[in-house]
Amino acid sequence: MFKKRTSIKQVEEGKYLSPKFNKDGLIPVITTDYKTKEVLMHGFMNKLALKKTIETGEAFYCALQKTIETGEAFYWSRSRKALWHKGATSGFVQKVKDIRIDDDQDAVWITVDIGQGASCHVGYRSCFYRSVPTKTKKNIKLKFKEKRKKFDPNIVYKGQANPTKL
Amino acid sequence: MFKKRTSIKQVEEGKYLSPKFNKDGLIPVITTDYKTKEVLMHGFMNKLALKKTIETGEAFYCALQKTIETGEAFYWSRSRKALWHKGATSGFVQKVKDIRIDDDQDAVWITVDIGQGASCHVGYRSCFYRSVPTKTKKNIKLKFKEKRKKFDPNIVYKGQANPTKL
Repeated sequence: MFKKRTSIKQVEEGKYLSPKFNKDGLIPVITTDYKTKEVLMHGFMNKLALKKTIETGEAFYCALQKTIETGEAFYWSRSRKALWHKGATSGFVQKVKDIRIDDDQDAVWITVDIGQGASCHVGYRSCFYRSVPTKTKKNIKLKFKEKRKKFDPNIVYKGQANPTKL
Repeated sequence: MFKKRTSIKQVEEGKYLSPKFNKDGLIPVITTDYKTKEVLMHGFMNKLALKKTIETGEAFYCALQKTIETGEAFYWSRSRKALWHKGATSGFVQKVKDIRIDDDQDAVWITVDIGQGASCHVGYRSCFYRSVPTKTKKNIKLKFKEKRKKFDPNIVYKGQANPTKL
């Protein structure tokens, strides 16, 4: 499925998928919302997660030349060190609408449909629920951009370890 | 400017900025366009780049409660191993409109204004100019989503090494 990286021209201007995984075997992934276009999360995929995300996608083009797809997103969980079918526990699966690869093919951007669901294990819709004020040198106070959580993580993830590491 | 990470609750639910840099001293950054909301690039910041991006931002709130800012984005160039003021060579600076930090504070999302400019060293507006078809197992052919380059990199970056690594 993935082609060997043989030249810069092939990687940047070619039509073949030649992803570059980092020294841990991972590629960073940006996940955005299909409707609101907000960034939902930043994660990583290993080779298998990327393959599964591509393979399970079911793409067809509607009259408006929009891509409609039914596949779901897979990641690599760095905290659990395991393939991670997003939503397997919470039910908040991500239906993949579009997959993009960047110029040097070392980053992936997927657009997903999560309906009225959520993406963040803390309970918010987006993991990026806090804004950093600028023009500040000291005592930065983050501003919460989402006022209410979409779900209670103590109920949804009961008994599971929190993936956040200090 | 950055607080020590002392507890998961502080990192996830607190108002202090406690970014986690990876073992190379970097934090991944998602950059999206202020107007179109498209993802422009995926990069990295070191501590100094993040500090400079925050410090130079000049934030004020207009009547519609939108944040208006004039700062510009800094990154860490992994190819040049140097602080990178985006646009210093090409002129395509990124005016920072919003900075977000994610739940476990190991990823940054910035929203920028690049006007009619471009973000990609290959010449396209977004680095993510190619789409990956799904439901495909072999011979994936990427689909170019941008038909024309915004600039000619051979002119703009004349004599400079291409940052793409095999």
